[in-house]
Amino acid sequence: MNLSCLLYGPGKVRFENRPIPTIDDAHDVLVRISYVGVCGSDAHFWTHGGVMRIVSEDEPLVMGHEASGIVHSVGQAVTTVTPGDRVAIEPGFPCRRCKQCKAGKYNLCPGMQFTADPPRNHGTLARFFRAPEDFVYKAPDSISLQEAVMVEPLSVAIHGARLAPLAPGQNVLILGCGTIGLLAAAVAKAFGARAIFVADINKAKLEFAKKFIAGYSTFFPDVNFTPQEEAKRFKKEMKLEEGVDVVLECTGVESSTRTGIFASAAGGVLVQIGLGKADLNLPILDMCEKETVLKTAWRYSPGDYEIAINMLASGSISVSALISSVSPFEDAAVAWERTRRGEGIKNVIEGVRD
Amino acid sequence: MNLSCLLYGPGKVRFENRPIPTIDDAHDVLVRISYVGVCGSDAHFWTHGGVMRIVSEDEPLVMGHEASGIVHSVGQAVTTVTPGDRVAIEPGFPCRRCKQCKAGKYNLCPGMQFTADPPRNHGTLARFFRAPEDFVYKAPDSISLQEAVMVEPLSVAIHGARLAPLAPGQNVLILGCGTIGLLAAAVAKAFGARAIFVADINKAKLEFAKKFIAGYSTFFPDVNFTPQEEAKRFKKEMKLEEGVDVVLECTGVESSTRTGIFASAAGGVLVQIGLGKADLNLPILDMCEKETVLKTAWRYSPGDYEIAINMLASGSISVSALISSVSPFEDAAVAWERTRRGEGIKNVIEGVRD
Amino acid sequence: MNLSCLLYGPGKVRFENRPIPTIDDAHDVLVRISYVGVCGSDAHFWTHGGVMRIVSEDEPLVMGHEASGIVHSVGQAVTTVTPGDRVAIEPGFPCRRCKQCKAGKYNLCPGMQFTADPPRNHGTLARFFRAPEDFVYKAPDSISLQEAVMVEPLSVAIHGARLAPLAPGQNVLILGCGTIGLLAAAVAKAFGARAIFVADINKAKLEFAKKFIAGYSTFFPDVNFTPQEEAKRFKKEMKLEEGVDVVLECTGVESSTRTGIFASAAGGVLVQIGLGKADLNLPILDMCEKETVLKTAWRYSPGDYEIAINMLASGSISVSALISSVSPFEDAAVAWERTRRGEGIKNVIEGVRD
Amino acid sequence: MNLSCLLYGPGKVRFENRPIPTIDDAHDVLVRISYVGVCGSDAHFWTHGGVMRIVSEDEPLVMGHEASGIVHSVGQAVTTVTPGDRVAIEPGFPCRRCKQCKAGKYNLCPGMQFTADPPRNHGTLARFFRAPEDFVYKAPDSISLQEAVMVEPLSVAIHGARLAPLAPGQNVLILGCGTIGLLAAAVAKAFGARAIFVADINKAKLEFAKKFIAGYSTFFPDVNFTPQEEAKRFKKEMKLEEGVDVVLECTGVESSTRTGIFASAAGGVLVQIGLGKADLNLPILDMCEKETVLKTAWRYSPGDYEIAINMLASGSISVSALISSVSPFEDAAVAWERTRRGEGIKNVIEGVRD
Repeated sequence: MNLSCLLYGPGKVRFENRPIPTIDDAHDVLVRISYVGVCGSDAHFWTHGGVMRIVSEDEPLVMGHEASGIVHSVGQAVTTVTPGDRVAIEPGFPCRRCKQCKAGKYNLCPGMQFTADPPRNHGTLARFFRAPEDFVYKAPDSISLQEAVMVEPLSVAIHGARLAPLAPGQNVLILGCGTIGLLAAAVAKAFGARAIFVADINKAKLEFAKKFIAGYSTFFPDVNFTPQEEAKRFKKEMKLEEGVDVVLECTGVESSTRTGIFASAAGGVLVQIGLGKADLNLPILDMCEKETVLKTAWRYSPGDYEIAINMLASGSISVSALISSVSPFEDAAVAWERTRRGEGIKNVIEGVRD
Repeated sequence: MNLSCLLYGPGKVRFENRPIPTIDDAHDVLVRISYVGVCGSDAHFWTHGGVMRIVSEDEPLVMGHEASGIVHSVGQAVTTVTPGDRVAIEPGFPCRRCKQCKAGKYNLCPGMQFTADPPRNHGTLARFFRAPEDFVYKAPDSISLQEAVMVEPLSVAIHGARLAPLAPGQNVLILGCGTIGLLAAAVAKAFGARAIFVADINKAKLEFAKKFIAGYSTFFPDVNFTPQEEAKRFKKEMKLEEGVDVVLECTGVESSTRTGIFASAAGGVLVQIGLGKADLNLPILDMCEKETVLKTAWRYSPGDYEIAINMLASGSISVSALISSVSPFEDAAVAWERTRRGEGIKNVIEGVRD
Repeated sequence: MNLSCLLYGPGKVRFENRPIPTIDDAHDVLVRISYVGVCGSDAHFWTHGGVMRIVSEDEPLVMGHEASGIVHSVGQAVTTVTPGDRVAIEPGFPCRRCKQCKAGKYNLCPGMQFTADPPRNHGTLARFFRAPEDFVYKAPDSISLQEAVMVEPLSVAIHGARLAPLAPGQNVLILGCGTIGLLAAAVAKAFGARAIFVADINKAKLEFAKKFIAGYSTFFPDVNFTPQEEAKRFKKEMKLEEGVDVVLECTGVESSTRTGIFASAAGGVLVQIGLGKADLNLPILDMCEKETVLKTAWRYSPGDYEIAINMLASGSISVSALISSVSPFEDAAVAWERTRRGEGIKNVIEGVRD
Repeated sequence: MNLSCLLYGPGKVRFENRPIPTIDDAHDVLVRISYVGVCGSDAHFWTHGGVMRIVSEDEPLVMGHEASGIVHSVGQAVTTVTPGDRVAIEPGFPCRRCKQCKAGKYNLCPGMQFTADPPRNHGTLARFFRAPEDFVYKAPDSISLQEAVMVEPLSVAIHGARLAPLAPGQNVLILGCGTIGLLAAAVAKAFGARAIFVADINKAKLEFAKKFIAGYSTFFPDVNFTPQEEAKRFKKEMKLEEGVDVVLECTGVESSTRTGIFASAAGGVLVQIGLGKADLNLPILDMCEKETVLKTAWRYSPGDYEIAINMLASGSISVSALISSVSPFEDAAVAWERTRRGEGIKNVIEGVRD
């Protein structure tokens, strides 16, 4: 049976046996889940029951979308993984037929079936999970299955950096030192950035960043000053006459995005990765005078997962220090709660034990 | 002597003789000015004395930056124009040495000397004007010198379209039917756009657009509804299930930019060409979910003027219908006043008569 | 029954009834074929029995890949076409799962099932043909079903131009005035090219080009001179000091490619669309000194068919003059033979009459 | 006086006092030369008297273009360097006015004044050399002035990699283990390449590469087999089913370029950096079927020198192991002769001693 962790509403979690998914398509892979990471959206679901669509007693949802596991069985057309393989799962399955899919942007597919998206796309927090072969990636031998849940947030950071695109020799400012921000800084280094600056208004997070990341400069924004003033101070302190070439915004907070824009050089680009309020007030005149480009990032597109896997395999990035806690399957809510309270970087939930 | 039209403050214009510029550099060209176009910024100067830097009794400014004329004399290294040539002038002279200039983005040059920019960069509204050879372009035989002042706003439209970049087969929405919007629509057609939609809240302007532009669809936004509602209605009326690929925003008004974002397809781009308020409130969450790209346009970059000249030469665009009035040199303020009141599309000022 | 035209070897054609394809997938569309165009590769098959893989008595092949028709029936998931719709068929069906497919380059899919590719991918020259919904495109009302077979070669020309990428304001040289060359010239115009030059060593073809294309310049290469000499003469005659920005090579002949390279400006690009010999001797030193880019084009990628359909719908290109002959289904070999002898531009074969 | 090393013909070198360059332009910088590197073209000049234009008794040439030194004096507009600064010199000065310069491609400037280019652009092998401020770069404190001559070849490698463009996560094959090849491999790593393969038919060079570069795979092509066979063996040995994404060709030898093309994946790019014969025979049909892109690299474009300087400053690349010999100024010919015989990687000539 397929023991699963379902959310029935804000704060309402139940563990139930559901049918084990069947290999319907010759390209299907059935994965025995080992670990599931918790991200901010899980904590939001836990508190509010969803984001735009809300779960209910009638339409509960199996949670979880950052998952690793071991291949249990495969369809007859599957060639890239075999039972027993340790894998990371990319948790969104596009239609493969629409204009966006065919143009190389499946993250924008209107028919995307994203894992743990109410009401019908159930998540990975279960004994077994089924995915198409090409969304199941062999984990490198050098990383643990706990670390393999980090392929998902790492892919988010990589997507943002590729979207910029972050080119060798550029100066990069990372706003926010949560999981995505920390990973984005590591990605910027691996992509050949010249100088990397990280900022967070949370001193503890900034201190963690200093330890996690070698050779980067940190900036502590003072919320008593305007974004324009803080950007000016940033440029002065970092001796950046012209500002940075690329800003990776990982907070979703208006003042942070504004600071990033004011801190960027003429012709610079800000990638909005963080999600927060529905609207942001942006300094458009300042942007026009220096032709700022604002890009917005949504999940990951083709190639992001491969690059993440390769970065972990080569050791150009190490994520073990980011795993703050591991909760047993039945304590999933403990992990959500920790994340809600802002405790730790990445809280992880174990899969069902045998 | 070099009779010039100077602004000494809001509403204070004087005509004075100033020294004729000398050919200091072997690449200099001296142009006898024939016509100068008026744009919104001229009207703003006329009313407020400037935008960020204000003219004064101590620091008056020769006005004018959209200019055509006849080459009077040239430096000894000049090879592309000769005295007697009819020309259009590109009115900003970059330093040629900075990172931006060398990277192909001279419009972002921090040392840019833009014409009619207080306090020291005097404008073209004078008998003679000096410019470097490579910013003086032969006007095609097929266009008049009145029409040649339109090369400047046409280059603004071309710059925005190239920035997008507007690719063949795309659906394009032009917001605003002023000079730039009308020209942007013509540019979109010349660049191979599939379907072109133009919108303006001013019915008269929209009516003019219908006559100026053949085969385009017009949309009249109802200000009693939200941008989101209007975008929905736009897509429904135009039978665009997914929205447009490119939006060229030519008003600088927040509700217009918002409408453009909501009307754009996943992966779409909005180019902010219009300038208005310093800040715009933007629907960032909607943008993130569809990875909207917001680009901001500043003047023109290398190649824009050449393309504008070629489009006029080939007849793929005709601008004569956009010239609404021609005022004598001594009535420059009449042309500014007309533009301030929103009368006509392009009001033009004659150069000094012999 | 599904009467089909099969090739059993060089010069061996037979007409046989084969099973009507069934709607196996919910996205399948069954098309009643109206017309099939003949291209050089069909003539090559007719003469040699294939290109790399040869048909045989044991493995005959249904011919044809440039096809139009009327939708006969559709799978239950099909939403974009309905029975009775007049359509053009894109004749290659990618796997949708590989790295190339997901990256937006399905033309490079190693699992591509291209129509009329021996031994198993049978062609369109039959009463009925089955294709996935998203490779079946509604023909615009304004074009006939004969003209609709031209969507395929038009897409080849569009693919080459987009690959360049051909940008507005560029000078373009088209080498070869066969179907692809003529269409490429029309595409270049629709894409906003500044000046378009077409060349062919066949005077009759060049004369046809002059009539087909208005406002282009034609060049007749003299085979008694070297490519370098001819390129020099071309630039002199066309008053192009720097050479052209883009060359679309549509012959596959070495001297033509070489002429194109020598005729191109510094930083220019040559797109090799024409296929001929396996090897070409290229002037690499000349290319290096001016950083020539050589791109090679293979069929069509996502979006090309849509753009072709739109260009035909808008009337920005007209293809009726290119259709030289229409042969009844049972005279398919007549059409192949005509094409082999170089007669006409596009010879078309009718579908099976009722 | 300005003691200079001049070439009067093949094998004819003389040391003469020439006038010290004067600061004519406010942006000029006069550099006291410390070291000059020798590259293959210097050895070719030494043997043949030039490449396309040959030096003579009437028109001798001061040699040298890879140079470092100490700023001696500066024009009054100079702000980025001051007397006493240790610097590397970018040895080509573009016109700043042509279309290529303004488009961000000054390496293609037809008016480029490249150092040590006969007959009039004298080189850096002299006591003093004058250059515009923006072509004089401060050397990082962490590198010696001997190492600073390597900024030039490093910029060549960076230019090729940026031209590709080499993106994070790609597999890269470097053909040739001379100075440029070795530096290209280091650049590929700094740019985030996934796996890097280097090849050379010279076993000693390949052995050196193994020591210079950690974690790369080396391939020894067997000249008894065809490029197609060797590429097949390469892919098999390296377990690359699809081939590499990027090839950086640094030999200029036809068989090497062919091997690179056959070894590349569908959609791959080969950048021809090495210069050799005027013509190369290329497998165009194979290229077309997989849409290979062939780019050709010429010197360096805006930004390349900055990136090189930054890579050296950050320690992401170390060049000291590549310096094989240092000859006194008066023994310049010894260094040329060593390079001609293929001895060492980079032979360096000292500047004039006080």
